Amino acid sequence: MKNSQQSVGVIGLGIMGSAMSANLVKAGFEVRGYDIVAARRAALRRAGGNPVRSVAQVNAGIVITSLPSAQALHDVSQELKRKCIVVETSTLPIEDKEKARDVLKRKGITLLDCPLSGTGAQARVKDLVVYASGDRKACDQAKEVFPGFSRAHYYVGAFGNGSRMKFVANLMVAIHNVSAAEAFVLGMKAGLRPEQIYEVAGDGAGTSRMFQVRGPQMVRGRYGDATMKVEVWQKDMKVIGEFAARLGVPTPLFNASAAVYNAAMAQGFAKDDTASVCAVLERMAGLRR
Amino acid sequence: MKNSQQSVGVIGLGIMGSAMSANLVKAGFEVRGYDIVAARRAALRRAGGNPVRSVAQVNAGIVITSLPSAQALHDVSQELKRKCIVVETSTLPIEDKEKARDVLKRKGITLLDCPLSGTGAQARVKDLVVYASGDRKACDQAKEVFPGFSRAHYYVGAFGNGSRMKFVANLMVAIHNVSAAEAFVLGMKAGLRPEQIYEVAGDGAGTSRMFQVRGPQMVRGRYGDATMKVEVWQKDMKVIGEFAARLGVPTPLFNASAAVYNAAMAQGFAKDDTASVCAVLERMAGLRR
Amino acid sequence: MKNSQQSVGVIGLGIMGSAMSANLVKAGFEVRGYDIVAARRAALRRAGGNPVRSVAQVNAGIVITSLPSAQALHDVSQELKRKCIVVETSTLPIEDKEKARDVLKRKGITLLDCPLSGTGAQARVKDLVVYASGDRKACDQAKEVFPGFSRAHYYVGAFGNGSRMKFVANLMVAIHNVSAAEAFVLGMKAGLRPEQIYEVAGDGAGTSRMFQVRGPQMVRGRYGDATMKVEVWQKDMKVIGEFAARLGVPTPLFNASAAVYNAAMAQGFAKDDTASVCAVLERMAGLRR
Amino acid sequence: MKNSQQSVGVIGLGIMGSAMSANLVKAGFEVRGYDIVAARRAALRRAGGNPVRSVAQVNAGIVITSLPSAQALHDVSQELKRKCIVVETSTLPIEDKEKARDVLKRKGITLLDCPLSGTGAQARVKDLVVYASGDRKACDQAKEVFPGFSRAHYYVGAFGNGSRMKFVANLMVAIHNVSAAEAFVLGMKAGLRPEQIYEVAGDGAGTSRMFQVRGPQMVRGRYGDATMKVEVWQKDMKVIGEFAARLGVPTPLFNASAAVYNAAMAQGFAKDDTASVCAVLERMAGLRR
Repeated sequence: MKNSQQSVGVIGLGIMGSAMSANLVKAGFEVRGYDIVAARRAALRRAGGNPVRSVAQVNAGIVITSLPSAQALHDVSQELKRKCIVVETSTLPIEDKEKARDVLKRKGITLLDCPLSGTGAQARVKDLVVYASGDRKACDQAKEVFPGFSRAHYYVGAFGNGSRMKFVANLMVAIHNVSAAEAFVLGMKAGLRPEQIYEVAGDGAGTSRMFQVRGPQMVRGRYGDATMKVEVWQKDMKVIGEFAARLGVPTPLFNASAAVYNAAMAQGFAKDDTASVCAVLERMAGLRR
Repeated sequence: MKNSQQSVGVIGLGIMGSAMSANLVKAGFEVRGYDIVAARRAALRRAGGNPVRSVAQVNAGIVITSLPSAQALHDVSQELKRKCIVVETSTLPIEDKEKARDVLKRKGITLLDCPLSGTGAQARVKDLVVYASGDRKACDQAKEVFPGFSRAHYYVGAFGNGSRMKFVANLMVAIHNVSAAEAFVLGMKAGLRPEQIYEVAGDGAGTSRMFQVRGPQMVRGRYGDATMKVEVWQKDMKVIGEFAARLGVPTPLFNASAAVYNAAMAQGFAKDDTASVCAVLERMAGLRR
Repeated sequence: MKNSQQSVGVIGLGIMGSAMSANLVKAGFEVRGYDIVAARRAALRRAGGNPVRSVAQVNAGIVITSLPSAQALHDVSQELKRKCIVVETSTLPIEDKEKARDVLKRKGITLLDCPLSGTGAQARVKDLVVYASGDRKACDQAKEVFPGFSRAHYYVGAFGNGSRMKFVANLMVAIHNVSAAEAFVLGMKAGLRPEQIYEVAGDGAGTSRMFQVRGPQMVRGRYGDATMKVEVWQKDMKVIGEFAARLGVPTPLFNASAAVYNAAMAQGFAKDDTASVCAVLERMAGLRR
Repeated sequence: MKNSQQSVGVIGLGIMGSAMSANLVKAGFEVRGYDIVAARRAALRRAGGNPVRSVAQVNAGIVITSLPSAQALHDVSQELKRKCIVVETSTLPIEDKEKARDVLKRKGITLLDCPLSGTGAQARVKDLVVYASGDRKACDQAKEVFPGFSRAHYYVGAFGNGSRMKFVANLMVAIHNVSAAEAFVLGMKAGLRPEQIYEVAGDGAGTSRMFQVRGPQMVRGRYGDATMKVEVWQKDMKVIGEFAARLGVPTPLFNASAAVYNAAMAQGFAKDDTASVCAVLERMAGLRR
């Protein structure tokens, strides 16, 4: 039997949770995982982990949560019983995370707010960054497991700062994805080839991580293989928009990008990658490839 | 006496021209340079080059032009006499470059449209990229001198494509500079430290070359040491805006950024770095550091 | 004792509710009103109405609700017992109104969705327009009381259409208020006097109801006498923004206006009139009057 | 023979110039008109005016110019010889008008900057407003003819203020036309009928002159009968945009609208009315009527 330091719990085995679990297994951890979907629990077993039948059975000193909604977090908070440190990695409103933290605290469980920077594709190759926040001591303990599923982690301070940093980063993601599309459409309409735009503009002052990551889809004009679906991204847009409004921060470029994502939803790209904003702008520009 | 392959002319010895000249000298070229300002000619001599007294005296097979305005280009076009290849590196409307090309063609001089990606600071350390366009054969000849002042060059096709690619790249520069400012202001107002934002958000999906390059100024909140002044940048904004309007390309984010640069001009940042848009957004957000 | 046609209930006696009540009294109705705040009930008595001590005691065939939040509507829905037609005039998410409608239906009470176009100042002079929607027959009955507090009413169809029309109208209100500010700031910076701008531009193709209504505050540069406070307006902005996002409608101008309202909040104008966006843009433009 | 007070010259007999001439004739003036196009001179004769064969032959104390470009104004300035007061009604950059003023001054001719508010359709029914600026005494003389072609006029001060006021008014025209389109598209996508939106939202706080004027085209979804073509309007957009940039005035809503007009150009609406931005937003919103 392995000792408790080598065990780690994972609740929520979707795209992110399953990828993290697989990497934790490879890194030598015993992964005790749970998901409400049986097929996902089975997938965990195939990946070398140990699925359990309920949240309450996830018995480990450190438990990672990767959840689709605030409601899921509140449900998990009710069901957790054993003392542990919970590494909450989902992107959710801070208020919901605070509420969960308070519920768990009464049971002696410490919730840490630790959103991740990176897509599902990046999670599979361990190209994730953890924005860890909350109780410092608990974070120090939790960071033993971070290298098992991420390439870097930063401690960013008080509980909620992880989410705040995530919103800041995602504000730029929202903008840079659309700015890449503007650049491709402007260039293509001016007669430049998209491959050339990707190669040349990607090697200069105008480049961004999003230009590099989403650019290949824009070059091909195919968005079906989504690493971030527009309909999922809309939730992030809403969370960031409300965060900025509540703080009284004007975000003119972010707001301008929101109109383009709405159009992507309207034009049938809900299940496609967010890179499909390029198709939206092409249509606006009357561009036929 | 050196042979003609080893000589290169440079017309316009401002921030960019002088930096390129100095690097060409270091790379072993004999630089024959001209500028209307005597002090700049003297500086060229100190840097190891050979200043001449007029455009007509710039005797070299390949001549680089780095000019502040369309008028300067038209003046130089009138004064050039000897056959050569002119590598025109300035950012100007394509129509003006075409006009100069036609004037020079009648004298047997080939003008190439070769804008540069990179700031004055980057020029000094040879961190420039050349977007070469125009006559292919002439470009092949000219590219012998490119490594003398740049780290990379791309041939992007017919005359004008260099400028088109530059506008595409600069559209993203315009946007990403403001998006970096939005991110810093949102984060700071949420209580995050700017140093932390720079470190953490710079290592993730939201980063951009501009975030990395201009971020340190935004962290300090000091914009006096300009690598690109707002008032100079306004010319680029105008050129790109008209380019997009003429092509019928909607550029919502670029347009949103233009309002912020106008505000920077209005608030006294004309001589400061474009990173000062961060101060503009801070004021809008009622943020006091 | 008066007959039921002459009585009308009013729940919520804030700025809008008290103004409507006063006008209904003047129009000859017996107003039976309730508000959780005792002072407002007393004010109703002074205005000639009959305050009651609870929602359940508001005994009338037609009951108008004018409420500050969705929660207030849900509370009222629980407390109402007697059969009646409820004319719901608040601006709230449609989902909340639908929920209330369903709760009331089980008690034989018909809820109509009837938002108002007009501010508190307009309500006092009966310059309101009712966007009536829901059960047609109930609307026909309710419209007997509309002339008692409004200058016009429109039946716009199925339940919820009243709110939809209100969101459409308010989207333009949001934009035109900021466009008036842009116009004043552009004109003033160009040396025109604000009084002149108001007079001349108000008599031409560029004018709007908002320019006419909010313009005098922008001319004076004083926003303390609010007919619509920025902090209250922010709720409308949120509701409209989510409405558009859910429908997949790109609203680039509305989104651009949202950034300016956020700035107004940040700069201390929360309690001021929304016309204070003029002060926000003046600051951005470095304008000193 | 009529005396000089009753004569008025008109140079430029396009849509605006011919409408003004016809109304001046009806008002009892002898109109001496010139246009480079012979057919337009013939039309003036049919309308009861007296066409002449050159600019120099336009012999009148007050001469109205209605010209398509700055170049046309400069040409006319060269050709005018006799002393007179020129009422310049075109929308052109102020710099060009100043240049013309200076050229004419040397010949004893006083140029007034007097742009008009109103479309060609409005010009036909005399629904124009004159923004008069320049020499006060000359304006007082010129205003004798204003009632012959306009419904109102305002003296707005020093030369150029007429244009400044026009830019301010047109900034709002640009925005309100697009805001009307946003409102129609939001409403239609929510299931409201466009006729209803026009009727109901047009009678409330959200309305604007543009909503009222362009709304009927948006209701029908037909834009072929242009009172202001998109391609012509693009020139106004450029002039206003540069005016704001030079003054350092941030105009976020105007900038957002510019992207939509660019899209209209791109989608083939160049010759259609500017109301066609509604079709652009419908396409973005995936709306099929």
